[in-house]
Amino acid sequence: MTGEFDLISRYFAPLAGVGGLELKDDAAIYNLPPGKQLILTTDAIVEGVHFLPNERAGVIAQRLLRTNISDLAAKGARPSGYLLTLALPDAWNEDWVSEFAEGLRLDQDKYGIMLLGGDTVSTSGPIIASITALGTVFSSGMVTRDGASIGDDLWVTGNIGDAGLGLLVAQGQVPQLAEKDKIWLSNRFRLPDPPASFGAEIGASGLVNAAADISDGLIADAGHISNASRVRFRINMASIPLSNPSKQAIRQGFWSLNQAVSAGDDYQIVFAAPPVHREAIKKVADANSISVAIIGEAIVGEVGVEVLNVDGKPIFLEKTGFQHR
Amino acid sequence: MTGEFDLISRYFAPLAGVGGLELKDDAAIYNLPPGKQLILTTDAIVEGVHFLPNERAGVIAQRLLRTNISDLAAKGARPSGYLLTLALPDAWNEDWVSEFAEGLRLDQDKYGIMLLGGDTVSTSGPIIASITALGTVFSSGMVTRDGASIGDDLWVTGNIGDAGLGLLVAQGQVPQLAEKDKIWLSNRFRLPDPPASFGAEIGASGLVNAAADISDGLIADAGHISNASRVRFRINMASIPLSNPSKQAIRQGFWSLNQAVSAGDDYQIVFAAPPVHREAIKKVADANSISVAIIGEAIVGEVGVEVLNVDGKPIFLEKTGFQHR
Repeated sequence: MTGEFDLISRYFAPLAGVGGLELKDDAAIYNLPPGKQLILTTDAIVEGVHFLPNERAGVIAQRLLRTNISDLAAKGARPSGYLLTLALPDAWNEDWVSEFAEGLRLDQDKYGIMLLGGDTVSTSGPIIASITALGTVFSSGMVTRDGASIGDDLWVTGNIGDAGLGLLVAQGQVPQLAEKDKIWLSNRFRLPDPPASFGAEIGASGLVNAAADISDGLIADAGHISNASRVRFRINMASIPLSNPSKQAIRQGFWSLNQAVSAGDDYQIVFAAPPVHREAIKKVADANSISVAIIGEAIVGEVGVEVLNVDGKPIFLEKTGFQHR
Repeated sequence: MTGEFDLISRYFAPLAGVGGLELKDDAAIYNLPPGKQLILTTDAIVEGVHFLPNERAGVIAQRLLRTNISDLAAKGARPSGYLLTLALPDAWNEDWVSEFAEGLRLDQDKYGIMLLGGDTVSTSGPIIASITALGTVFSSGMVTRDGASIGDDLWVTGNIGDAGLGLLVAQGQVPQLAEKDKIWLSNRFRLPDPPASFGAEIGASGLVNAAADISDGLIADAGHISNASRVRFRINMASIPLSNPSKQAIRQGFWSLNQAVSAGDDYQIVFAAPPVHREAIKKVADANSISVAIIGEAIVGEVGVEVLNVDGKPIFLEKTGFQHR
């Protein structure tokens, strides 16, 4: 049986950056570049709650890292490093850990980040993994949730609802779609692709007043900005960007716009910005091959989010966000 | 049933520092003072593995925070903030969470640190809590494990083995001691008291060549320094500092020096320093009301730790450190 020290030295030490000291010390050193501010976030996942049964270990690792990178991207921060806590059942096997580490390595390369440290513990319960991710912004400061102003456009990156529909597909609840669409959609849930570079650039640009990542669902996360900024948002259903497989699922009647804007796990960014910055924002998006869309605006009124259906009539959404516990 | 958002806003938001943004945003801001370097460490605890059954939630929180602060102290870093991941069973109750948060608050005051962020998740298994702690050192750099030189004194802070004996006491395995000694000893396990200020000052002083905290056991942790520094340590059993209750337990035959130097969880510091710095080190210790003792030296020879018994004869220790998994 491989012990904790062997596990760390064999699978995780090769992932450590300079400051990680090959994970041989009690702590890591982090050198913050001059003129930069540090941004920190923590996200954890639990087997049986946050990922599919029998999900590949590498995908679990990548998904966890990306949910953290999504938080950083929404704050305008460029990811730089992370620390990992891994709670494993006594019966953990080396293949699983090896694949988990390989998933981390793939995304370290993709995002240009390094492992700085962590802890492995034994549990009698499900696998739990937690990452604390570090990112940097220029000292002008990070993009918060509380800066939206009346008159701001409300934007989203990417498409909305693919992850929620993808989860249904992965659970076998949407048999009608073509096999390739099913694979594509379930991968939107399994392996989110947060707009990391776009987030960092838009953060540094000063074009954006407020932002959040879409983890709880578009309406819920726009609601968080609304609350913090004390503005009301009006969202037009006709403007919600949808993928082709998602449009087809809606046409076939087993998915809906209401579900799309309420589902979680998209890990895109919802942000508010003055209309004067429209062209500049589109330019940053184009430069990063990211699609962006204006889906509404910040208006005078009670804090909250109102939704106009495709005919321009107000609608009431019962479920406005999945609350992970 | 209180949900995640309520739990965070009620119990954890009041613990958040300025950069924690009342835990209302996706991430935290951390301002590193000019001329300082950031030091990071992560430690996790699992119910049924790292703390006693029926342990008070406040003590669990303090113990976890202190194991992290111990890592920082051994690196010469002054603690400044932390992020928390808390995995709770569905049947969590508010009293437990309230006491856990109160424990954090007490130690935030004691160590002058702030909560920066975190995540709460639901688990079908045991409670797991993980903290990533941040500390700072002057840019001269942190105290590592790899700087010990031949001829260095080997030092420890505090007493050795009290936590290991305290665990036995808490488990009811040492009935012979006086009640007040039993309470005192079990508290050494339950609530470690790492020499945080001494660690930060000794780190800034440049007096110390290498250090580690004593979490796996004195011999094991001295072994980590030996390995990293490529020196051999000789430890004299006659010099190991022991508390009075621990001496009494040894006299009564249900504890031994061998157990004391092999037991984990002391969360003191073992460090190597040139003999020329003896008086200066004692001065820093006195100023912080910390006891320190020279227990051995770095010698020429194979990497490892050799132990001389109280008669000066080499002895072989079978169990040289408890490996948490």
